Amino acid sequence: MESEGGPFKGILRDIEDRRKCYKQDWILGFKTGLRILAPTCYIFFASSLPVVAFGEQLSKHTGGSLSAVETLASTSLCGIIHAIFGGQPLLILGVAEPTIMMYTYLYSFCISRPDLGRELYLAWVAWVCVWTAIFLILLSIFNACTIISRFTRIAGELFGMLIAVLFLQEAIKVPIPLSTKSLKLQITCFSYIHTMQGLVSEFRASKSEHDKSRESDFLWPYTNGLLAVIFSLGLLITALKSRRAKSWKYGFGWLRSFIGDYGVPLMVLFWTALSYTVPSKVPESVPRRLFCPLPWETASLYHWTVIKVIKMINQDFLIELSKKLFYIQDMGKVPVMYIFSGIIPAVMIAGLYFFDHSVASQMAQQKEFNLKNPSAYHYDIFLLGIMTLICGLLGLPPSNGVIPQAPMHTKSLAILNRQLTRKKMVKSAKEGMKMKASKSEIYGRMQTVFIEMETSSPQVCSVANDLKDLKEVVMRPDEGGDTKGKFDPDVHIEANLPVRVNEQRVSNLLQSVLVGLTLLAVPVIKMIPSSVLWGYFAYMAIDSLPGNQFWERLLLLFIPQSRLFKVLEGVHASFVELVPYKVILMFTLFQLVYFLLCYGMTWVPVAGIFFPALFFLLISIREHLLPKLFDPQHLQVLDAADYEEIVAAPIQHSSFAYRKLGSSRHLSEGEEEDVFHDAEILDEMTTSRGEIRIRTISFKEPRLESEERRVTFEPH
Amino acid sequence: MESEGGPFKGILRDIEDRRKCYKQDWILGFKTGLRILAPTCYIFFASSLPVVAFGEQLSKHTGGSLSAVETLASTSLCGIIHAIFGGQPLLILGVAEPTIMMYTYLYSFCISRPDLGRELYLAWVAWVCVWTAIFLILLSIFNACTIISRFTRIAGELFGMLIAVLFLQEAIKVPIPLSTKSLKLQITCFSYIHTMQGLVSEFRASKSEHDKSRESDFLWPYTNGLLAVIFSLGLLITALKSRRAKSWKYGFGWLRSFIGDYGVPLMVLFWTALSYTVPSKVPESVPRRLFCPLPWETASLYHWTVIKVIKMINQDFLIELSKKLFYIQDMGKVPVMYIFSGIIPAVMIAGLYFFDHSVASQMAQQKEFNLKNPSAYHYDIFLLGIMTLICGLLGLPPSNGVIPQAPMHTKSLAILNRQLTRKKMVKSAKEGMKMKASKSEIYGRMQTVFIEMETSSPQVCSVANDLKDLKEVVMRPDEGGDTKGKFDPDVHIEANLPVRVNEQRVSNLLQSVLVGLTLLAVPVIKMIPSSVLWGYFAYMAIDSLPGNQFWERLLLLFIPQSRLFKVLEGVHASFVELVPYKVILMFTLFQLVYFLLCYGMTWVPVAGIFFPALFFLLISIREHLLPKLFDPQHLQVLDAADYEEIVAAPIQHSSFAYRKLGSSRHLSEGEEEDVFHDAEILDEMTTSRGEIRIRTISFKEPRLESEERRVTFEPH
Repeated sequence: MESEGGPFKGILRDIEDRRKCYKQDWILGFKTGLRILAPTCYIFFASSLPVVAFGEQLSKHTGGSLSAVETLASTSLCGIIHAIFGGQPLLILGVAEPTIMMYTYLYSFCISRPDLGRELYLAWVAWVCVWTAIFLILLSIFNACTIISRFTRIAGELFGMLIAVLFLQEAIKVPIPLSTKSLKLQITCFSYIHTMQGLVSEFRASKSEHDKSRESDFLWPYTNGLLAVIFSLGLLITALKSRRAKSWKYGFGWLRSFIGDYGVPLMVLFWTALSYTVPSKVPESVPRRLFCPLPWETASLYHWTVIKVIKMINQDFLIELSKKLFYIQDMGKVPVMYIFSGIIPAVMIAGLYFFDHSVASQMAQQKEFNLKNPSAYHYDIFLLGIMTLICGLLGLPPSNGVIPQAPMHTKSLAILNRQLTRKKMVKSAKEGMKMKASKSEIYGRMQTVFIEMETSSPQVCSVANDLKDLKEVVMRPDEGGDTKGKFDPDVHIEANLPVRVNEQRVSNLLQSVLVGLTLLAVPVIKMIPSSVLWGYFAYMAIDSLPGNQFWERLLLLFIPQSRLFKVLEGVHASFVELVPYKVILMFTLFQLVYFLLCYGMTWVPVAGIFFPALFFLLISIREHLLPKLFDPQHLQVLDAADYEEIVAAPIQHSSFAYRKLGSSRHLSEGEEEDVFHDAEILDEMTTSRGEIRIRTISFKEPRLESEERRVTFEPH
Repeated sequence: MESEGGPFKGILRDIEDRRKCYKQDWILGFKTGLRILAPTCYIFFASSLPVVAFGEQLSKHTGGSLSAVETLASTSLCGIIHAIFGGQPLLILGVAEPTIMMYTYLYSFCISRPDLGRELYLAWVAWVCVWTAIFLILLSIFNACTIISRFTRIAGELFGMLIAVLFLQEAIKVPIPLSTKSLKLQITCFSYIHTMQGLVSEFRASKSEHDKSRESDFLWPYTNGLLAVIFSLGLLITALKSRRAKSWKYGFGWLRSFIGDYGVPLMVLFWTALSYTVPSKVPESVPRRLFCPLPWETASLYHWTVIKVIKMINQDFLIELSKKLFYIQDMGKVPVMYIFSGIIPAVMIAGLYFFDHSVASQMAQQKEFNLKNPSAYHYDIFLLGIMTLICGLLGLPPSNGVIPQAPMHTKSLAILNRQLTRKKMVKSAKEGMKMKASKSEIYGRMQTVFIEMETSSPQVCSVANDLKDLKEVVMRPDEGGDTKGKFDPDVHIEANLPVRVNEQRVSNLLQSVLVGLTLLAVPVIKMIPSSVLWGYFAYMAIDSLPGNQFWERLLLLFIPQSRLFKVLEGVHASFVELVPYKVILMFTLFQLVYFLLCYGMTWVPVAGIFFPALFFLLISIREHLLPKLFDPQHLQVLDAADYEEIVAAPIQHSSFAYRKLGSSRHLSEGEEEDVFHDAEILDEMTTSRGEIRIRTISFKEPRLESEERRVTFEPH
């Protein structure tokens, strides 16, 4: 991503690069066969649930102008477009929290302006989208993506933290980014939609429920509140637990891995099911459930242009469409001054999308995944512009690259590929050993297998290098008795196999289609109690924190120095050892202050729209101010310029585990066991935000060894 | 505890032995000064809460004949007697679950017999106590305690597991040890006392609440149920978390240690307080609170002889008393046949107490605590007999040695002593080093300090041996640069200081007195919501499991063999490495079957009284059957004949931590930090049942060291 090169250079290069492997992307995908469904479903659940959640949030904040129906439609539509025409097919798109916030600000602005009002909200937003699209396309044309090398960890993590806090706030109570005035307006105008939000609100009697029965009565809301507490906390806790299932000590591999991958949706199902076990005497409005219009209800039809388009198909399509594109969404009715004032939010949104999209894409292509295919930042931003335009005109909230899901996607594909390769290599190696082949022969066999699997990569030269570690192990001269050093296929291949990702477009396409199909499932979605949703928000917030270095440093501040050894003992980020405590402290405090600044910004009624500006300001602060304050070396550790981090430790760790196993003769026969170890290992390697973890293992004492041998052979 | 020696030999020897250090026990206690209050309060909370819980349970099962008032009184009374006249002052007494069960059986038997009925229940039970006392005294006279070396782990752990399961059952629903017939009887006769028990019952409309308002209404019970779920689960979770506070990574030492020690009572307070935040519109019978008569209410007076005795004081005491002793509790009215039939339960109870009391005492005197004063098993059983008699005549449920608390007591005293000794030694050592004293001099200084602290022990000869490790470290020749080996007072003294217990009678006496004072706090106790109590039951059950080898082996069965390395990696009991998986499997299954047998027994209406017999049967099974089925060596590992286990690993572990600290120059200055490290270390050493843990640390790979040095110095 070098900065030189005139307009269009970036885009053209990207297109050129991706064209080479485009065909391959599809072939490989289909070659993988049904196994591709595992990562597909995994990502589908991971991206559809939040989209529904955001939809709910959106409908609360926009007086029902938009809802889960639109967010799902947008996610699906953009996903399909990106899967087919996108540059980097590993990138997952979806309607994300920043979009929701922006749309909320825009709404509150709209209804505070009599000459816009709710009627013209979508029309005006369409204009904003048009501007946004223009800016995005300009950015991509002028190779702005070269800047992304300057998005440092600090920015990404501040952003992550902000999102997390907003989620949590969402889960607990209604946030008030709307000026009270506009809020009043909103409630008065659209009181038929309950703006009840968050767990706290579950205790209040809501105006929305239409059962005449005991609305006024204090009692039911109270019971509803209690149920809400149980459901939301229940979901939160069970979801967090199941998320970690892969590293559970108990249960079979397939079970743990299944729970680990699908635990969260399962829990949503479970608690929803449980919410139907309330005694029949309870009115059906308790517990309160999601508010979400059916796609085919007029409630959504009245503004949902997609439907109109579909309806048009059987009429004279072109004429209608052309008409539509001119008079679409009464965009014409928007007063000119507003059309242009739309530029201001557009700048912000463009910036936000640019930032979000690029970082997401960046994290889906971390070095450790050993991707063979090139990146396509410029072109993807260009495409994002196009998609934003389309969504705007269709009256949908636009989608962009989403952060937990994108890296999760790459990860799941890596696991998939690992399974395929590993099995074959182990097999060939064992055959080799059976027939007492020489070491180099055995290695040769494995290499050939490996290369076979490398179909996706044009250059095989890298292989030798990738397999270096493995070769080393195989070639190691066996020391007399101890089995430790000796080469054991099950153990060492697992340990030294380089990460390979099954790079293709099929999984992304399929999951987008599935998201689209969810639209038909809206009646099912409506069954989810809102309290479960609050729990889910809290889950998303908390689950995004571990691995966020900012968060981990914050926690570090709560550890008295005398107890730091606790951290050093365990697996820990290397900055703990490389940077003096004082520096960590200062840096973290600076970050905290800046974070509070951003957070405070989101509370400012309408000016809140400028919060993205702070992130771009941060980039220059990072470049010019921070190096003056901190030792560059420390800065580099605390705020690495991209997400490249070390993977060695955990792999070692697990291989070591295997070796123990091997030596203690407890090797598993069932292949499916191994399959899931892979999943687990990659799970350990990556944070729940999908980044590769920095890990170092603290110094072990030689003394311990002798010490504990003594202990072990004592019969007690 | 050698078996030879005629009647009274054991008791006399015990008395002789303890007489030597009796004076010392008091002097030392008072010398410790106010610091003695820490362990005192710790034990007070640990023993008073369960007693209240049992009291509640008892009043539910005995139609209110007995309640928390009696259990508290008994615990306090026996505690005081034992603290003053008892043999082993470290042993903590209290009314325990087995007593409750036995009393429940006796009650259900009583009310099923028209000629006994509820009126004569306490009178008849008094007779049973008389018999029990006789048997206990006989057991002690004939040195039966020599048998306790044959109480093996398997018996103790079955017992522990049984108690745990009964607790859990208690927490969830009313157990039905009573034959339905007698249950019906009970409900009809005493319906004014709600026999509602367990979380489930909170959902049912209970007959007991006297608020006319909406009793019949379905609604309030439902709300009550929901609140109960929140409170009980809330207590359970927070209690379990706070229990582990000492090993938390975050927060200051004093805070963690405070939460770790007093967290559970604090949580009970917290949730009780929370239960008063329910809106005023909720009737005051929601949430339901503890049922427990005030000591000075007639409800308790009518049978509570203690009160009568107190009343007598100001009358002609002797006459009254003598009368009382003859006609006490209308014991005369009990039909002769019943007086003698009382022998059968008496045998069981005697057996149970004998077992429970001895094991508790045994666990309070584990080898690793390095107790200086002798044991007094025979004499303590004798005293237990006397106390049982007294309680019986006073109409109180007798107390006996209680298992989690007794070892907890010793542990807390060990911590106390450790703090005192350690500080002085570090100080002297540092002085020594300042004035460049020779190694042997420094060691000499420390030894003298140590001996000073040894006031309690007559023989100092052992010191040299106890300080062996420390001496070794001090004398070690320093290798050139590396600080690791070099002697560092803060580090090595901590690591190599032998455990010493502050053996005295004051803490035990004080805590018993405090329990007695709780009687005045009954109005406060009544404020606790019953749901919190269910949560507390569940907590006691779950908290007692870890460290129970039986439980840990059961869990082991859920780990697929291919994942055993997970266990081997972590700190784990040595049997995992020393015994083949298959053997562990067989042994555990046998234990499980036997456990189910015992548990099933408790469900048999009245014959359930015989369940203690199974435990004694087990002893002979262990001696004659098991050795035939299992390899003696394995058997010894799985079922060590006493609770002696290894302590090395964890101490090493923490000292290693310290050394890391020392080397990474992060040493804490604040003394109070260190103080609590001790607490933490001893906490790691012992299971939550207070036993010393078997621990070995799994083999560390030398490769890791180089590996992670590479990692550490990579700048990323």
